[in-house]
Amino acid sequence: MTFRPEFALIERIRKAAGGSSRVLLGIGDDAAGLGSREDRETLVATDMLLDGVHFVVEECGPYWAGRKALAVNLSDLAAMGGRCIASFVSIAIPRNWNAHEADELMRGVLELAAKWDCPVAGGDTNSWDGRLVINVAVVGETIEATSIRRAGAQVGDVIVVSGALGGSIYGRHLKFEPRLDVAAELLKLAKLNSMIDLSDGLSSDLWHILRASHAGAVLEQKRIPVHEDVRHHADVVNLSSPPALAHALHDGEDFELLFTLSPAQWETLRQNWKLPIALTKIGTIVSEEACRIVSETGESKELVPGGYVHRFG
Amino acid sequence: MTFRPEFALIERIRKAAGGSSRVLLGIGDDAAGLGSREDRETLVATDMLLDGVHFVVEECGPYWAGRKALAVNLSDLAAMGGRCIASFVSIAIPRNWNAHEADELMRGVLELAAKWDCPVAGGDTNSWDGRLVINVAVVGETIEATSIRRAGAQVGDVIVVSGALGGSIYGRHLKFEPRLDVAAELLKLAKLNSMIDLSDGLSSDLWHILRASHAGAVLEQKRIPVHEDVRHHADVVNLSSPPALAHALHDGEDFELLFTLSPAQWETLRQNWKLPIALTKIGTIVSEEACRIVSETGESKELVPGGYVHRFG
Repeated sequence: MTFRPEFALIERIRKAAGGSSRVLLGIGDDAAGLGSREDRETLVATDMLLDGVHFVVEECGPYWAGRKALAVNLSDLAAMGGRCIASFVSIAIPRNWNAHEADELMRGVLELAAKWDCPVAGGDTNSWDGRLVINVAVVGETIEATSIRRAGAQVGDVIVVSGALGGSIYGRHLKFEPRLDVAAELLKLAKLNSMIDLSDGLSSDLWHILRASHAGAVLEQKRIPVHEDVRHHADVVNLSSPPALAHALHDGEDFELLFTLSPAQWETLRQNWKLPIALTKIGTIVSEEACRIVSETGESKELVPGGYVHRFG
Repeated sequence: MTFRPEFALIERIRKAAGGSSRVLLGIGDDAAGLGSREDRETLVATDMLLDGVHFVVEECGPYWAGRKALAVNLSDLAAMGGRCIASFVSIAIPRNWNAHEADELMRGVLELAAKWDCPVAGGDTNSWDGRLVINVAVVGETIEATSIRRAGAQVGDVIVVSGALGGSIYGRHLKFEPRLDVAAELLKLAKLNSMIDLSDGLSSDLWHILRASHAGAVLEQKRIPVHEDVRHHADVVNLSSPPALAHALHDGEDFELLFTLSPAQWETLRQNWKLPIALTKIGTIVSEEACRIVSETGESKELVPGGYVHRFG
């Protein structure tokens, strides 16, 4: 592992990287050394973000590209019921970038890392003729003894989502806050059976839980929380229209938490929830391995991952 | 963390990924879950390899590109006195690749991962219009209670290198074997004070140890083990010529281990060393913070990182 001397960037990263009692050895050796707890699962998430695929750096600027690369991984940690230990940042910088652009990118990473106590403990820097690439790996650990996985939903569970969904393309896909605080508070208040973060869109990510849990779901159309950003879509007349619902169901990169728990646990959670991020019950886990969505008039459609709603029976 | 369905590649990776008692949760959730030991340092290394920078995939093929991306990280683990727990592989695949090319890349990763018991427990796949990018992060742990770091060399230490150096560009930079077995055997036989793997070249990597340890070194020119691959260089007449020495000192990507230990420990190690990879004493750690190399005729030059040898005094 080598932070090469592009723009003297490495020394600046090292100085700004922060530290913690869990980072025994940070940037500057062949690998980082971390302290671990045997009574916790060590969690590792990694995502590679590409200019032109996950962001357009000419439009959003290096700061938001860097921030997003860390944020998507922190969202993954949150979805496991985890907290941060350290982050590892590999970047391929376009050869024509100047030092300021590289610094801005790292500022986006480092500010979010500081906020969530996830010091940058290592990485790799290169410059090349291609477009910007950022890979972040985060190491964390479960808040409780074990992780909250996709494969734990039980028949009868309530399905709950944090925040509101859809329209992230208008800015939230870059500027969202990873729900680490929500996850920590959830685990304090209730026993969750399954959880995932919404990266591909509700219809797809719910499907990941259902497939892993060998279960199905019935969603209540009127309960799906539509984000007001959806109103920016040209096809949306108002937020209770069917196109608005489709965006809430299928747009990706909400980075909210989707989880299931027993009705009794949900009741406890609901009554004690104090954080400003709304929790909304949107449906129920059922045994039949399909996902239906029921309208206010009682019409039932099948909800297929990837964005298509077909009439169901 | 999402393995997206490019080429149905993910399912094939998942099936071939292997497992171990330390991988509690592998590919297929938001993050991997690993078991950790509190009496060991958790080690994390990461490297991003770029087509056209670290390999030319049209020349070497996807298999060797994939293998190298894991191997450089395993070499980092070895240099810390570590062993593997799991690896995490993020790839950006050129959009015109077919399924066979992607499979070949992963075969290069997975075969080496199986050999060193480092199951692939997660990652990320994307396709894009750019050239191939592979980021590997490996998580491991120290064999003993603590890591062998760069910053531990003591005045009077013997400086030792494994294998022979130079000319890796003729193939070894792709096909080298990470020295995990050498590191494990070294730790069994002796107490090491500092260690690094040779990625930037002996003159640069020794400098990393010296700077971190606030010490200097005197190397004996005649002891530097020159790899026979150096003979392929146009400027090399024979392997005892000064150009051959320069390649051994400055060529990068040998991925051998460079370490220091007390003369008494070296004597024990030397007498009990049974592995087929040679260990060579090449010099001594001194207090004056400079690096000198002494010829057979007693001439002393300063050895500067990055490939320049100037007359010293």
